[in-house]
Amino acid sequence: MRRIKVVLEYDGTDFFGWQVQARTGERSPKERALRTVQGVVEAALSDVPGAVPRMMAAGRTDAGVHALAMTAHYLTADTIPTQKVPAALNARLPADVRVLAAEEVGEAFEAQFSCRYRRYEYRMRSLRGGLAGSALERRRVLFLPQRLDAAAMQEAAPRFEGTRDFASLATQETRPTVRTVLLCRLHVSGPELVLHVAADGFLRNMVRALVGTLLWIGEGKLTPADVPALLGAKDRRRMGPNVPPHGLYFAEAGYEPWSGLEGV
Amino acid sequence: MRRIKVVLEYDGTDFFGWQVQARTGERSPKERALRTVQGVVEAALSDVPGAVPRMMAAGRTDAGVHALAMTAHYLTADTIPTQKVPAALNARLPADVRVLAAEEVGEAFEAQFSCRYRRYEYRMRSLRGGLAGSALERRRVLFLPQRLDAAAMQEAAPRFEGTRDFASLATQETRPTVRTVLLCRLHVSGPELVLHVAADGFLRNMVRALVGTLLWIGEGKLTPADVPALLGAKDRRRMGPNVPPHGLYFAEAGYEPWSGLEGV
Repeated sequence: MRRIKVVLEYDGTDFFGWQVQARTGERSPKERALRTVQGVVEAALSDVPGAVPRMMAAGRTDAGVHALAMTAHYLTADTIPTQKVPAALNARLPADVRVLAAEEVGEAFEAQFSCRYRRYEYRMRSLRGGLAGSALERRRVLFLPQRLDAAAMQEAAPRFEGTRDFASLATQETRPTVRTVLLCRLHVSGPELVLHVAADGFLRNMVRALVGTLLWIGEGKLTPADVPALLGAKDRRRMGPNVPPHGLYFAEAGYEPWSGLEGV
Repeated sequence: MRRIKVVLEYDGTDFFGWQVQARTGERSPKERALRTVQGVVEAALSDVPGAVPRMMAAGRTDAGVHALAMTAHYLTADTIPTQKVPAALNARLPADVRVLAAEEVGEAFEAQFSCRYRRYEYRMRSLRGGLAGSALERRRVLFLPQRLDAAAMQEAAPRFEGTRDFASLATQETRPTVRTVLLCRLHVSGPELVLHVAADGFLRNMVRALVGTLLWIGEGKLTPADVPALLGAKDRRRMGPNVPPHGLYFAEAGYEPWSGLEGV
């Protein structure tokens, strides 16, 4: 069996997230119909003779979250030349998922367990100064009608970096809550705000809670200096709300040690 | 009555174009349900006391064509301060249409008849070198799997400039077919190709036929030197096919004389 690593782009709008929902227990017709990225990718693999229809990803994105470059892998006994794998899978996939690249990897490679860091982007646009939300980007960017102190948000972001217990930013998380945030920077260009955040791993809803907390800082409800104490309190209720999923992008799964992000 | 000029952005994906379909004659339930930009904008206006629910635009885009900035106007006896018009209308509009700006204009202003030029963009991306189509931009950009000579396309584009009879690029056109193309340039940046084209007015499907013809030139089926003779032949069948609408954007309606486009 060959082991194929693929990089996927997807539009999260019409997916209930990455993960195929568990098949156990009683399920309503609506639950059975949940459309997931893993579901459609595994359906495509099941159409390739010799492929094992099981795709494991570096991260599990929630409903509505996009991916610029999600890494995943699968096993196969097919005879498709590796450079033709993207076209072969794309021909079997809906247009809101694309295989951008494929390479054969050794048997030690696991998209999830070999991953050293994950990187996300969260894209926002300020509507101050009379700007309207964009019709063309309404499913791609969070529009911010409120007045915001972007400098305070920029000052606060790096205070989330480091190895800490991030329980205060997690929702329904059953795993240990210590993570190492390698990068947390807010890039501001005119009305456009993009949070770049990388970590060895993320807790459930962590990025969306982090952005919600940065927005509270921008609104003056919290200050940058509050961040260490709020993380220390491990109390989800003291942080800002989870922002919507449509501004969030899984941007990179890294398989080499973190070496920084150029230009951020 | 005040006369309000507005600038609209819209995502053409879920619209059957700009224009409200004629109400005359027998129509099936499906035809009656056709969703148009003018229809939803006029429905929003009909919810504003004092406004005349009739919106006239500088151009009539076809089904699936987007607008970055479509200019339109309407008459109203409402008391909404002009600077609050975008928010007032946006609150009554679906998210795939946004009013970006509004200003009060004199009674001589007509969005269509005062317009000196219209500008469109057509966005394409080459998939040569093993690139896959983008999931996130599948409704925004035309992907080009074929091998293309971009330099030939760039050389050919300005040959469409000037005052000419463009009958060879029109579909189902009942008006006179002489137009003045002020600008026709292909901007190439890596795999991204954008055609910028401005004219005093466009014939039905003219930009999409022009792009289809440029693609034939890129594929070697025609040469840049063929353009004058092809235009002179006034034969739609000798030009390339109409490209799909989802790469096309109405970019600007100009109410001053054309003075060039910076950076193109």
